[in-house]
Amino acid sequence: MDAAVVLLSGGLDSSTTLAIAQTEGFRAHALTFAYRQRHEREVQAAREVARALGVDDHRVLNLDLRELGGSALTDESVEVPMARELDEISDGIPETYVPARNTIFLSYALAWAEVIDAGTIFIGATALDFSGYPDCRPEFFQAFEEAARLGTRRGVDGRPVQIRHPLMALTKGAIVQRAVELGVPLARTWSCYLGEAEACGLCDACQLRLKGFQEAGVLDPLPYRRYPDWYPQPPGPPP
Amino acid sequence: MDAAVVLLSGGLDSSTTLAIAQTEGFRAHALTFAYRQRHEREVQAAREVARALGVDDHRVLNLDLRELGGSALTDESVEVPMARELDEISDGIPETYVPARNTIFLSYALAWAEVIDAGTIFIGATALDFSGYPDCRPEFFQAFEEAARLGTRRGVDGRPVQIRHPLMALTKGAIVQRAVELGVPLARTWSCYLGEAEACGLCDACQLRLKGFQEAGVLDPLPYRRYPDWYPQPPGPPP
Repeated sequence: MDAAVVLLSGGLDSSTTLAIAQTEGFRAHALTFAYRQRHEREVQAAREVARALGVDDHRVLNLDLRELGGSALTDESVEVPMARELDEISDGIPETYVPARNTIFLSYALAWAEVIDAGTIFIGATALDFSGYPDCRPEFFQAFEEAARLGTRRGVDGRPVQIRHPLMALTKGAIVQRAVELGVPLARTWSCYLGEAEACGLCDACQLRLKGFQEAGVLDPLPYRRYPDWYPQPPGPPP
Repeated sequence: MDAAVVLLSGGLDSSTTLAIAQTEGFRAHALTFAYRQRHEREVQAAREVARALGVDDHRVLNLDLRELGGSALTDESVEVPMARELDEISDGIPETYVPARNTIFLSYALAWAEVIDAGTIFIGATALDFSGYPDCRPEFFQAFEEAARLGTRRGVDGRPVQIRHPLMALTKGAIVQRAVELGVPLARTWSCYLGEAEACGLCDACQLRLKGFQEAGVLDPLPYRRYPDWYPQPPGPPP
């Protein structure tokens, strides 16, 4: 079995991606970043998801992206956009964009891949229900893969690391369906940008997540403080 | 004046690169990484060089590359190669290669460039007197630049960040000459991989540095514990 590095934030998408990598037979080495993000609660979610899915290894790296600033997720002085309409969420690059975050995350994943001799990196980026982040697009990953080929020992040896983003073409609804099929512990995942005791239900991350559950016809087991108007199901007990 | 992010390790090459960026009129924002490297002394060198050259800003980011391991520079169990012949130094990827290090460093530089709206990143990589690191080659930087174009707000806005490596075509001797011309405080720079009180004189970094001073006909002002056999000048007082 080949080893793979899986970027695991603890959210719906990356947790599902981890389950996909395992289903494909990879020995999953999950990598999580505690970057003093506003929603550091997701790091705990990542630990629980990794344990529940039985990964081969899980590392949590401490990064200080606040030192550089520039995002609502790492800079207290920038506000998280709330209660936007769904069609606004895909419109332009939002304040929650963390400059070069995926480039930084992939760089560490690449370093770990070199060390453990993994030929694949999995990342849970999606193009549909697009977050508006430029570093979630397939053309970015392709260019990064090429840089990785040229800049690593594996690449020089003719065994370049591949970057896989199996959710890219899936809707949020299809991701939720896939997560349910694969037994992803949805109650342990975390998406809300605010990172409080209950999910807020109104930030972009909450709304995209709830849209997925709505499309899939599945109740989101997470506690929400409130729900967007369009979310049809009243909060009920977890399924 | 445009802002530029300059990767500054505190060694001869990056210090000279910083001086070149300033000479070209950039407002230099120096970026240094304390990655628990064996030769953490270079971080102090970077601070002193940045101060001496009067940068606009200098940040030192703490990274834990030891967590991932895999290099003589970050893993105590891997030995730094010593007293190799100069022609051996360019032969293959050495144990001092830190997996994906420049990819990681450039990613942070890219993040900072986004935040401060800098259009240029300077890195002191060289192709002649090649260190054997795959992530020091121009084709790697070109590929990274393309990934940066696709993965950042600046790139989306049609103002991609450029990566400059002005030393790429220079010999070590030419770099020393350039450093002297530009008033780089050579006595404050640090190159030795061991990071002890005196430079060892025998690791790859020391040998490449001394080769540069020899070619330039300049005495290296740093204290060395010993000199390689081919270094013609007996140790004397700094010039």
